[in-house]
Amino acid sequence: MVTDSMKIIEGGVTAAQGFEAAGVEAAIKYQNRKDMAMIYSRTPCTAAGVFTSNVVKAAPVLWDKEVVTHSPSVQAVIVNSGIANAATGKQGYECCRQTADKAAKLLGVSSDAVLVASTGVIGNQIPLDRLLPGVEKLAEAKADTREAGTLAAEAIMTTDTVSKQAAVQIELGGKTVTVGGMCKGSGMIHPNMCTMLGFITTDIAISKELLQEALSEDVVDTFNMISVDGDTSTNDTLVVLANGMAGNPEITVKNEDYNKFKEALHYIDTTLAKMMAGDGEGATALFETKVIHAATKQDARILSRSVISSSLCKAAIYGHDANFGRFLCALGYSGVEFDPGKVVLSFENEEKSILIYKDGAAVPYSEEEASQVLASPEVRVLVDMNMGDAEATAWGCDLSYDYVKINADYRS
Amino acid sequence: MVTDSMKIIEGGVTAAQGFEAAGVEAAIKYQNRKDMAMIYSRTPCTAAGVFTSNVVKAAPVLWDKEVVTHSPSVQAVIVNSGIANAATGKQGYECCRQTADKAAKLLGVSSDAVLVASTGVIGNQIPLDRLLPGVEKLAEAKADTREAGTLAAEAIMTTDTVSKQAAVQIELGGKTVTVGGMCKGSGMIHPNMCTMLGFITTDIAISKELLQEALSEDVVDTFNMISVDGDTSTNDTLVVLANGMAGNPEITVKNEDYNKFKEALHYIDTTLAKMMAGDGEGATALFETKVIHAATKQDARILSRSVISSSLCKAAIYGHDANFGRFLCALGYSGVEFDPGKVVLSFENEEKSILIYKDGAAVPYSEEEASQVLASPEVRVLVDMNMGDAEATAWGCDLSYDYVKINADYRS
Repeated sequence: MVTDSMKIIEGGVTAAQGFEAAGVEAAIKYQNRKDMAMIYSRTPCTAAGVFTSNVVKAAPVLWDKEVVTHSPSVQAVIVNSGIANAATGKQGYECCRQTADKAAKLLGVSSDAVLVASTGVIGNQIPLDRLLPGVEKLAEAKADTREAGTLAAEAIMTTDTVSKQAAVQIELGGKTVTVGGMCKGSGMIHPNMCTMLGFITTDIAISKELLQEALSEDVVDTFNMISVDGDTSTNDTLVVLANGMAGNPEITVKNEDYNKFKEALHYIDTTLAKMMAGDGEGATALFETKVIHAATKQDARILSRSVISSSLCKAAIYGHDANFGRFLCALGYSGVEFDPGKVVLSFENEEKSILIYKDGAAVPYSEEEASQVLASPEVRVLVDMNMGDAEATAWGCDLSYDYVKINADYRS
Repeated sequence: MVTDSMKIIEGGVTAAQGFEAAGVEAAIKYQNRKDMAMIYSRTPCTAAGVFTSNVVKAAPVLWDKEVVTHSPSVQAVIVNSGIANAATGKQGYECCRQTADKAAKLLGVSSDAVLVASTGVIGNQIPLDRLLPGVEKLAEAKADTREAGTLAAEAIMTTDTVSKQAAVQIELGGKTVTVGGMCKGSGMIHPNMCTMLGFITTDIAISKELLQEALSEDVVDTFNMISVDGDTSTNDTLVVLANGMAGNPEITVKNEDYNKFKEALHYIDTTLAKMMAGDGEGATALFETKVIHAATKQDARILSRSVISSSLCKAAIYGHDANFGRFLCALGYSGVEFDPGKVVLSFENEEKSILIYKDGAAVPYSEEEASQVLASPEVRVLVDMNMGDAEATAWGCDLSYDYVKINADYRS
């Protein structure tokens, strides 16, 4: 995934030139925690975005789709992590407008250059008397430091246990181009486009069409291949802002530079997506399923997602139980046709690969050894369909008592 | 659901004339519990069945499909609840054959008149040296008493906490026709056709074609509308045996008698399906979602199933938390198109209905009162789509710590 031409660096949304960020406390819902973030670019950005496929779309999703599609440029993003602003009707959309207006005024940009994003409880209205002062605090606090990026990444967390950032650099036409990003997401994660929120900033010069195409293509194999609980949120949002400050020859055709950028974007998307899956609510392990030799790419995606989405497979991982029948079962009900007699299934961690099932039945294996492998912080199930050349990888997490605890108590 | 012409009675698979049953200990996997059951009809039966849609089909499913399709009649069913006999290759299928041969010999019927069914851990081979003596015990113990039916219903349980039986009588052409059934199922329950096993016996005289048609049509709105964990098992099996001993005029066309039988069958299917959902692994409540005024019947089915299948909705029910946004969210990602502004959502129990959401936003309601409603043993979410005339009901259960506990430890 990391190519020779890529340099992984520290940082997140402030890694690229010209980007500033902030994270502050605005008491939207909870006290004594950062709950609002801002991303700001000193110069106008080309923007691309992908959003939830849920029919019930949060107000900020409706707002952002409009902005990404129709605005000539984007220069700021305002995020709150207290209330989702979903199922809030006209009042919810008006809240987005007022947030954008406030930020626009403070930053000296136009309202349609401001994206808004929300995550949190669905159905409540956001108190504007807390949100708008929050925007003021953000405008004052913003900075282009790595620290400021980290504060923003922390401010967008809900049930996340760690903040999630990644950044990488590539050389294009003699210029250093940086791509950095942050995301949050821990529950209600089953992206089709994930309540994941993701923000990627880059100083690359690229046309809007190619930026959107690169993003749309890449999410299919990254963010859309993770699942925590099978629930596709009302708020899923992933946006990329490109301000062109790297000074590379602008990318307007699918040339070598475009391919290099896609690799860099893929690295950031994959890294952030895996961080989200591994930090799923209550998770004790990242649970990866790699399907190889499937008949088609789409089959490989469906099969791998079916396994990481299965409650019973997830509970088996939590229990370190090599109950491989559940994995076969999840492949079997995925909707993909195959011959169970051809499937070869192995459990793997960083160090070991243990063959479990072949020729339609279990092979002799050590339960103890298999259980040890499944006790790793990163567990992989490798499934060889022996049907063709396509492969795909999906990422999820185990199902623990804490997932239930978090979600039975979430609003209290 | 219960019509005037129906009389609900005590009992299960031995309620109808001419049927015998047994439940015994065979130590297939566990000690000191009944784990094998038999159903036997003194006269040959017309049989109909529906089976799992999982590509990975257990050996008994393959065996039974063959028997139901090609055998002139069926006279016995042998069930074990220790090992699923799935993902067991040729040896697994051979096990079915030997079971049927043994039973056939003891009962004086032909092998292709014997159905076999299994539930339990996937991937292990069943020890024939325990299974075959189990068949002998069953043949000795079988009886036509209500008690014998109850022993059989207990013997097919795995993680079930209660045994599940129902029986009903109708009058056809001056004759009393009885339909009785038993089922098991608690985890890996997401029937498409559901590891549910269900067995229905009746003394009705009916043609094979109409028996199969009645069953196939009815499961769509009963067993296929329940879910415990979204995992469609490798072993799901539901069979109906009709021995004709009631002496009613044989049903060969869709007349009034056919309709009465369908109502009786629907009562049994619905009752057993709801018992399964309410006894889902770790469940503390039966969680029903009724969708009304949907555009099409299929939309109503998809919408209601999406809600009862959502981990987040299930966790909210467990937490008695009126977090209605999760319910809207689950409707929204179901794949059905609709206008969220038209949806009206209420939480209900036996006594109360509390309006929660209307016109695109929450209506004022008492959280305390809503929480009380959600604390009932049977909780219903009523969703009015305001789009058309179609309706459907789906049944699931809440998601508790115990679901995780049961499934992280299942094999140990």
